[in-house]
Amino acid sequence: MHKENIQHEIDLLTQNATRAKEQLAILTTEQKNAILKAMALALDARREEIKTANHKDMVLAQEKNLSSSMLERLQLNDARIDAMISGLNQVADLHDPVGRILQEIKRPNGLLIKKIAVPIGVILIIYESRPNVTADVAGLCLKSGNAVILRGGSEALYSNQAIFQALVQGGTKAGMPQHSLQFITSSNHELTYTLMQQVGKVDLVIPRGGAGLINAVMEHARVPVVKHYQGICHVYVDVAADVNKAMAIVENAKCQRPGVCNAMETLLVHHDLAATFLPKIAALLQKRGVTLKGDVETQRILSGSTIAPVENWSTEYLDLILAIKVVPDLAAAIEHINTFGSHHSDAIITEDSVAKQRFLAAVDSAAVYVNASTRFTDGAEFGMGAEIGISTDKLPVRGPMGLEELTAYKYIILGNGQIRT
Amino acid sequence: MHKENIQHEIDLLTQNATRAKEQLAILTTEQKNAILKAMALALDARREEIKTANHKDMVLAQEKNLSSSMLERLQLNDARIDAMISGLNQVADLHDPVGRILQEIKRPNGLLIKKIAVPIGVILIIYESRPNVTADVAGLCLKSGNAVILRGGSEALYSNQAIFQALVQGGTKAGMPQHSLQFITSSNHELTYTLMQQVGKVDLVIPRGGAGLINAVMEHARVPVVKHYQGICHVYVDVAADVNKAMAIVENAKCQRPGVCNAMETLLVHHDLAATFLPKIAALLQKRGVTLKGDVETQRILSGSTIAPVENWSTEYLDLILAIKVVPDLAAAIEHINTFGSHHSDAIITEDSVAKQRFLAAVDSAAVYVNASTRFTDGAEFGMGAEIGISTDKLPVRGPMGLEELTAYKYIILGNGQIRT
Repeated sequence: MHKENIQHEIDLLTQNATRAKEQLAILTTEQKNAILKAMALALDARREEIKTANHKDMVLAQEKNLSSSMLERLQLNDARIDAMISGLNQVADLHDPVGRILQEIKRPNGLLIKKIAVPIGVILIIYESRPNVTADVAGLCLKSGNAVILRGGSEALYSNQAIFQALVQGGTKAGMPQHSLQFITSSNHELTYTLMQQVGKVDLVIPRGGAGLINAVMEHARVPVVKHYQGICHVYVDVAADVNKAMAIVENAKCQRPGVCNAMETLLVHHDLAATFLPKIAALLQKRGVTLKGDVETQRILSGSTIAPVENWSTEYLDLILAIKVVPDLAAAIEHINTFGSHHSDAIITEDSVAKQRFLAAVDSAAVYVNASTRFTDGAEFGMGAEIGISTDKLPVRGPMGLEELTAYKYIILGNGQIRT
Repeated sequence: MHKENIQHEIDLLTQNATRAKEQLAILTTEQKNAILKAMALALDARREEIKTANHKDMVLAQEKNLSSSMLERLQLNDARIDAMISGLNQVADLHDPVGRILQEIKRPNGLLIKKIAVPIGVILIIYESRPNVTADVAGLCLKSGNAVILRGGSEALYSNQAIFQALVQGGTKAGMPQHSLQFITSSNHELTYTLMQQVGKVDLVIPRGGAGLINAVMEHARVPVVKHYQGICHVYVDVAADVNKAMAIVENAKCQRPGVCNAMETLLVHHDLAATFLPKIAALLQKRGVTLKGDVETQRILSGSTIAPVENWSTEYLDLILAIKVVPDLAAAIEHINTFGSHHSDAIITEDSVAKQRFLAAVDSAAVYVNASTRFTDGAEFGMGAEIGISTDKLPVRGPMGLEELTAYKYIILGNGQIRT
């Protein structure tokens, strides 16, 4: 694409989005819910077209020899289409995050100041492979009153387009403002990069995907970014741990679903407990098929097994592999977590209330746990109902990002003639 | 500075700041207040050194023929040093923003989830001329538990250093963690640009200054930015306005302090009121020394006066100059504001409740007023006590930025052995 064509396309996308966001900001909850339900119906009605489109993507993906895990993420079947449909209906049932009064201040001069939640505006979402993201993101953004520009992976282009067209067709019939959803069919990177530099016209970019995508967005974006990046999560078993809780939580955090961002990657064990605890937990984890790696002290204690050394304490294995370190005390555990972790989810297992407080205060992560599995860091588990991702950034949003996190705020000030003296 | 020297300096600054932020995050309110009061005392004790340093800056500035407004901003006298001192003491009296419980969720599985306010972490502040910013920013960041890296303008180097040294000396005696405040003496731009690219080590950059500084930060920053940019503020006088309120508010918004960001730059008047209202308000404003510019309709109505045309509706005059436009209706007023404004502060003057609601909902600005002057957009006027600036961004912070806006949040989750099934 030539530079002037890119600029033309950018102008069109942002002007459309601006008009849409103005109309979206003033829709009522009932109007938004009707649109969501109409989108769900349209997905159901166009189910066969969506499956046909997905089949095209799958054939192309097989020709390109994409990995089996990539193919697995790409594939749509009736169950996955049903999940998109029920997702949209669930979002319709959730509380409208727009218009919430976050603060109310009555000033001595009579001014009434209200801080209220408003849509963020225009959100650019860049995602890879899973076509269900198209529907999930569209639903959450619509309910939170945001105009969205979707840029999916080229490997899912036919599927994404089919879903997008169904959503637009259904939504429009129920009164969705034109261009509330826009979909970029071009795979031109320059276009996407330029779009994330439109300060004031695009309000937020959310990349969902691997390190390559995240790094490209960090490099090029000039508008605010919310990253869903790595989860290098820790469980620290303190000297005052209840060993039964520790066994169950460590097993759960590693084994229940090892391929996700809130699974544990590193186990830290207090030195005074290591000689008794490590052999027990190692036996349990090895029975569950976990490959253990460890520092020198762990290797010494578990000398009966073959424990490989840990090459890098910041590795996100996303697999049945666990790094183990023996630490001299709580302070060393906290320092390890803050240095090598990804500020996602970290837990302490202890019955010592001073240790609990210190861990909660000092660990600089989105979710800090006492005596529970890191696997709970999730929009649904936090009671948010649905999430667009889990932010590993600190600003503007941290941790699970649900409907409320898809809003910004403004101040409205009600007076009766006040002037400043 | 060579590239390797810059990297060495960056590593030193960020490592120092990381250590400081860890200690700052766990200070008690009492400890922080004691540090603030000790800083205030130290400024008083080193008053003569500060004035001597400022004299050096003033001499150099005069040699360099800096403008008189620049010199005015640069100069320190006893009154300005007193203001810094009382500012620090006032911040000590404000409520601690860290540790506030923003939300509390009890889950059916017994998990107690608390969303709590925490310091942002490491904040880089880049500012120009006014040396009092050094003390103001240091006080607000200390109270909110943030480590701060200060980069002042070269024209205020001696003054800033003298203030910085007093703050560090006073604060340290009262237990301030080492490197809570760091000051960059080098005027090397590459160093500052590299610093604002330290994702994960610097958590926020706040530029305070003119368009050149703001644009440089937007170009180079990779960490979140809060900009205090232009204020192109509007007052819209609706057909249903109370004319007395309109007269007083328009006069106040333009004349009370025209050189600040929340002063009105453009007056919008409903067509049906223009013929009666414009001559009255023009007479009042011209008596106050305001130069009027207008669209064709305004020029026609005010044909007795000399009304120059408006070249650009997005001009921030910061002076006794006012652009006037006659609009056909409320919708046109809203569209003008959203198109040409800077999303800072905008007001409607009306007694019509439907018009009020529509304006409040549709105007996409940090502060939207009904029947009050735009001049109230200010941390102190909003009851925040003090502000580090007024954000013209939507994310992560919008409008006046006080102590609470200098915090992020994290989730702490208290369990008794919960695992995910």
